Amino acid sequence: MNARILIINPNSTQAVTDGIATAVAGLTVPGGPRIDCVTLAEGPPGIESQQHVDGVIGPLCNLIKREPADAYVIACYSDPGMHSAREVTDKPVLGISECGLLTACTMGERFGVVSILPGSIPRHLRAVRQMGLWDRMAGDRALGLGVVELADRARVFERMVAVARDLRDKDGADVLVLGCAGMAYLRADLEREAGIPVVDPTQAAASMALGRVLLAQSETVSRQAAE
Amino acid sequence: MNARILIINPNSTQAVTDGIATAVAGLTVPGGPRIDCVTLAEGPPGIESQQHVDGVIGPLCNLIKREPADAYVIACYSDPGMHSAREVTDKPVLGISECGLLTACTMGERFGVVSILPGSIPRHLRAVRQMGLWDRMAGDRALGLGVVELADRARVFERMVAVARDLRDKDGADVLVLGCAGMAYLRADLEREAGIPVVDPTQAAASMALGRVLLAQSETVSRQAAE
Amino acid sequence: MNARILIINPNSTQAVTDGIATAVAGLTVPGGPRIDCVTLAEGPPGIESQQHVDGVIGPLCNLIKREPADAYVIACYSDPGMHSAREVTDKPVLGISECGLLTACTMGERFGVVSILPGSIPRHLRAVRQMGLWDRMAGDRALGLGVVELADRARVFERMVAVARDLRDKDGADVLVLGCAGMAYLRADLEREAGIPVVDPTQAAASMALGRVLLAQSETVSRQAAE
Amino acid sequence: MNARILIINPNSTQAVTDGIATAVAGLTVPGGPRIDCVTLAEGPPGIESQQHVDGVIGPLCNLIKREPADAYVIACYSDPGMHSAREVTDKPVLGISECGLLTACTMGERFGVVSILPGSIPRHLRAVRQMGLWDRMAGDRALGLGVVELADRARVFERMVAVARDLRDKDGADVLVLGCAGMAYLRADLEREAGIPVVDPTQAAASMALGRVLLAQSETVSRQAAE
Amino acid sequence: MNARILIINPNSTQAVTDGIATAVAGLTVPGGPRIDCVTLAEGPPGIESQQHVDGVIGPLCNLIKREPADAYVIACYSDPGMHSAREVTDKPVLGISECGLLTACTMGERFGVVSILPGSIPRHLRAVRQMGLWDRMAGDRALGLGVVELADRARVFERMVAVARDLRDKDGADVLVLGCAGMAYLRADLEREAGIPVVDPTQAAASMALGRVLLAQSETVSRQAAE
Amino acid sequence: MNARILIINPNSTQAVTDGIATAVAGLTVPGGPRIDCVTLAEGPPGIESQQHVDGVIGPLCNLIKREPADAYVIACYSDPGMHSAREVTDKPVLGISECGLLTACTMGERFGVVSILPGSIPRHLRAVRQMGLWDRMAGDRALGLGVVELADRARVFERMVAVARDLRDKDGADVLVLGCAGMAYLRADLEREAGIPVVDPTQAAASMALGRVLLAQSETVSRQAAE
Repeated sequence: MNARILIINPNSTQAVTDGIATAVAGLTVPGGPRIDCVTLAEGPPGIESQQHVDGVIGPLCNLIKREPADAYVIACYSDPGMHSAREVTDKPVLGISECGLLTACTMGERFGVVSILPGSIPRHLRAVRQMGLWDRMAGDRALGLGVVELADRARVFERMVAVARDLRDKDGADVLVLGCAGMAYLRADLEREAGIPVVDPTQAAASMALGRVLLAQSETVSRQAAE
Repeated sequence: MNARILIINPNSTQAVTDGIATAVAGLTVPGGPRIDCVTLAEGPPGIESQQHVDGVIGPLCNLIKREPADAYVIACYSDPGMHSAREVTDKPVLGISECGLLTACTMGERFGVVSILPGSIPRHLRAVRQMGLWDRMAGDRALGLGVVELADRARVFERMVAVARDLRDKDGADVLVLGCAGMAYLRADLEREAGIPVVDPTQAAASMALGRVLLAQSETVSRQAAE
Repeated sequence: MNARILIINPNSTQAVTDGIATAVAGLTVPGGPRIDCVTLAEGPPGIESQQHVDGVIGPLCNLIKREPADAYVIACYSDPGMHSAREVTDKPVLGISECGLLTACTMGERFGVVSILPGSIPRHLRAVRQMGLWDRMAGDRALGLGVVELADRARVFERMVAVARDLRDKDGADVLVLGCAGMAYLRADLEREAGIPVVDPTQAAASMALGRVLLAQSETVSRQAAE
Repeated sequence: MNARILIINPNSTQAVTDGIATAVAGLTVPGGPRIDCVTLAEGPPGIESQQHVDGVIGPLCNLIKREPADAYVIACYSDPGMHSAREVTDKPVLGISECGLLTACTMGERFGVVSILPGSIPRHLRAVRQMGLWDRMAGDRALGLGVVELADRARVFERMVAVARDLRDKDGADVLVLGCAGMAYLRADLEREAGIPVVDPTQAAASMALGRVLLAQSETVSRQAAE
Repeated sequence: MNARILIINPNSTQAVTDGIATAVAGLTVPGGPRIDCVTLAEGPPGIESQQHVDGVIGPLCNLIKREPADAYVIACYSDPGMHSAREVTDKPVLGISECGLLTACTMGERFGVVSILPGSIPRHLRAVRQMGLWDRMAGDRALGLGVVELADRARVFERMVAVARDLRDKDGADVLVLGCAGMAYLRADLEREAGIPVVDPTQAAASMALGRVLLAQSETVSRQAAE
Repeated sequence: MNARILIINPNSTQAVTDGIATAVAGLTVPGGPRIDCVTLAEGPPGIESQQHVDGVIGPLCNLIKREPADAYVIACYSDPGMHSAREVTDKPVLGISECGLLTACTMGERFGVVSILPGSIPRHLRAVRQMGLWDRMAGDRALGLGVVELADRARVFERMVAVARDLRDKDGADVLVLGCAGMAYLRADLEREAGIPVVDPTQAAASMALGRVLLAQSETVSRQAAE
């Protein structure tokens, strides 16, 4: 049976899950693990507060417990429940913020984070300090758009480019990380505009999951062969 | 044509290159990129000093210039020439120390490094500080075996287990990183003995390379489809 | 009407709540706020894992929403739900780990944490890094006693003294913090044995809550007088 | 006999001492310790240089030696003589800069300091680094007003609001600390204007002193009861 | 025979070497060591990339091996080959970036670096992190002038003053370090314009070399006298 | 008239001043500045507490004001009054702790400090954090000898070697700094025993003073010649 990577979108918006599926499609290879993207039905439409973050942990852990997989990716930039999830399974559990920032560290000296909401920045700062990556951070700036504007692709991209430029020119970022699981479709365009690498964190986490799964499979085969 | 990941062993010992090839074999999947492991003929038998590190940069960059690939992995724990190499190609260049430590950060709170030679530790410390990962490091301890003993697998493993226990019990490591490209074959056994995850850095770097190559390919396809 | 400080024990063990009430009794003064200690009925008997921590956040926030108070103290060393709770009320919410460590910083140069379970240490380390207090930490060591031994006061104290000495002599701590809300009754004795200050974190948090409530009351009075 | 907290204004300006007394008046409760605010006669009119800071240490320690109290607060943002004072008494000695910054850490992720004089900033930076709180600091900006302007309440407040906005908007502060013992009367107004919490450091230190005194008293009573 | 300090300009531009010789001339005293400034013939005209940095290490180490001296100074702000050079001689080897930044730490709280090229800044940041001096850095800003403009002294100085002001006023630097071995002739003028100390790193390194050589000589004399 | 470096021993023990004079004698060169070592008559016999440190600041600043010199060195490992002294003169003022640690950073990756008294260690730790050098520190260990033993050269050296070995082997130091102005006469012997470089901090500070004075003199001459 094929191995399986389960990417969980902890908000309940199917469109975000679909965007994630598109973003990671390239990581599915014939001989490799299946990559399934699922929506956490119990999640809020968007994860916009610490309460939202903490509120999805229970259902998310339950989902992991009932859905067997060889690796799990939590596809929300606040990495909700990552440490709890690591207690409910012995398979790899990867958070997209963690993997996005760590991957950015292989591409530049100081990362800038493009966030959606100003209110998320303190939460992000806590995470960066918790990971011990503070001295690699150039800044974290938010689009700060209202709901109506967020539905307007051109408006979102225009703001994103402005924020990216501030991170690059005012804060000194030489690599950017998208601070949200739902912006992957703009990654390549933003990279072109900003002139510095842009990391989609879900792609980063899914990549690390893929490596972990393939290596574990191969090791199992070797061990069985040796026995 | 298939994509290609080139893993370069910057020392001239073919047996190390062969060990690397075995270690990353599991990352080769039917639809995925070819993974080629090559030996830098101009390298010393082992990279044991800063002079060795600096001495291989020129030939290593030349090799990268003449060997087309979609991503390069420098398979020596001192990441020799990583920043120079990033100037000679616009493809991803990954160092195994960088990727090994960053990957370890997804598995534990404080990493311990199992080094071969005591003399390499100051160099490793400089690298950890340079990467801004100092607060994630528990310690770096060396096997400190002589040449004859290093040829004795049982002796090496025995010392490795002792060092791993010191890193875990005295320094507080909850994840280990092998501080050398040539110890992958002992990874699984050491993990079993130590009871905490052990990262082979070459596997970590090759995994990240695989993700980068697959994503780049997929993006190219999407862009071409859109045009 | 009197002001009120609500101290919430997020585990369901009433004996722990009683111990907390005793520990903070001295902070109740005739003219000052009432200090009520309550047990979170929905909590587990003890908070011993990240799942326990995350699992109490919902009920804890609900309790805060339905129990009016002028300040809240979350009396578990993992500060469960502290950031969520700060979203559900505009009154001060204080976590005992945060307040315990910050208070320790006024008493010594490097704090040592006396934890109950080895498995809690990685969680504590994440918190110390998140708070940006890493360079003030000497170490975190656990009693590592089984359930039966934990019921034996003499055995607990004996281990606590041994752990305190290791923190002081091997790690360089010159102030200790009890890594649990249920050890206050041993604080003074441990301080005497260890010869360095010992902070009960619940006392530290309740003290800071008391100050915040008194100052807020006084400011309200001044403002009303001015109007 | 009642316990006593002694707050020492190390500059010789009685008006500052009076302002401090007003600021901490709310912390005096019927059953609690008396809070006495005294002026250090030997101090300069204002502490504006490192020489001023160092110059008051001797007289300040003498004052502590001759004035019995259960806790001492040094009410100057440079925490003059704090470590010396801790040698001359075994009662708690709290500095307002230390307590102000630590308290701010319970209210926001990154603090900004509103200083009076630009020349004090390097001294403040040294203190923040010394406390190990560097990664929690957003910035330190000075009013930079001349003597005449400093006497003009409206002018001071106008500059303070401008500085607070720069700390919030340019430096990313989400909590402010007043970098002087003499600005408490503007705290509430500044908080309203800035829209983020503002800590008066003397109130923070006096609060921590209150807690320490009450707990020590209560512990003494318990011990005596047990004997 | 007189002792000798060898200052090596690793780029091949004799005019830079001449400028260095002028900058350190004041360190030559009758009874003290000779200070010789040499040009590395194999170097590029200017060291402008990581490849340039790494490319001069081999010839630079060879030069050190064949040129006896009592201390060596590597006079390029990227400290090329410093750690390798320390392996090829047991005499002191000092890098100008290291010594410039460390010396600046005795003159101010936060240093700003005046760089020539924007592309060098990531390399400088890596070095500052590697040295563990991150929390002392205010910023690093580049002149960003083209080749023609760099030949125009007035234009260079004008930009340098502008950059110095940004480092001082926007980044908070209170001491500056010239990020290049070839700007010593502007040091005093820049210091006057900027109003804060300016360190020429080659002078800083040569000073430390002078001290090391004099102390070693004197110790040898004492030891011989004792024998 | 010759330039002059004034080295001030802030304790009143002439024998320590004499030892300092011997230690820096090698830095006096025919054409260079005179180096005068003076004893602060008002100082205590030894500086052993924060009160001692703070107590000498006034007389030390007075001495600097009445004794003209081209640079001042404060020869006590607690750098008493360094920042105040920098306000009373516009000539360089160097502290031996600051210069000793910064110089050690050019000789190894992690420094260990050999202190006399255990009670000085917290003070030293504060200084290391204040300087931002925390991540370069391996440890600080004290001889912990009583007065009688301290008078016994053989006993002192024996303990010093033991402490040096602990710093090297248990803490990972690869360079040592003597944490006192009075141990210079043992530097060379300790270096031989420990097998890693040992920095006498007074020599380090005097070296930096020498460089600063020579450069300032030379610049004055150049300026005058230009006028």
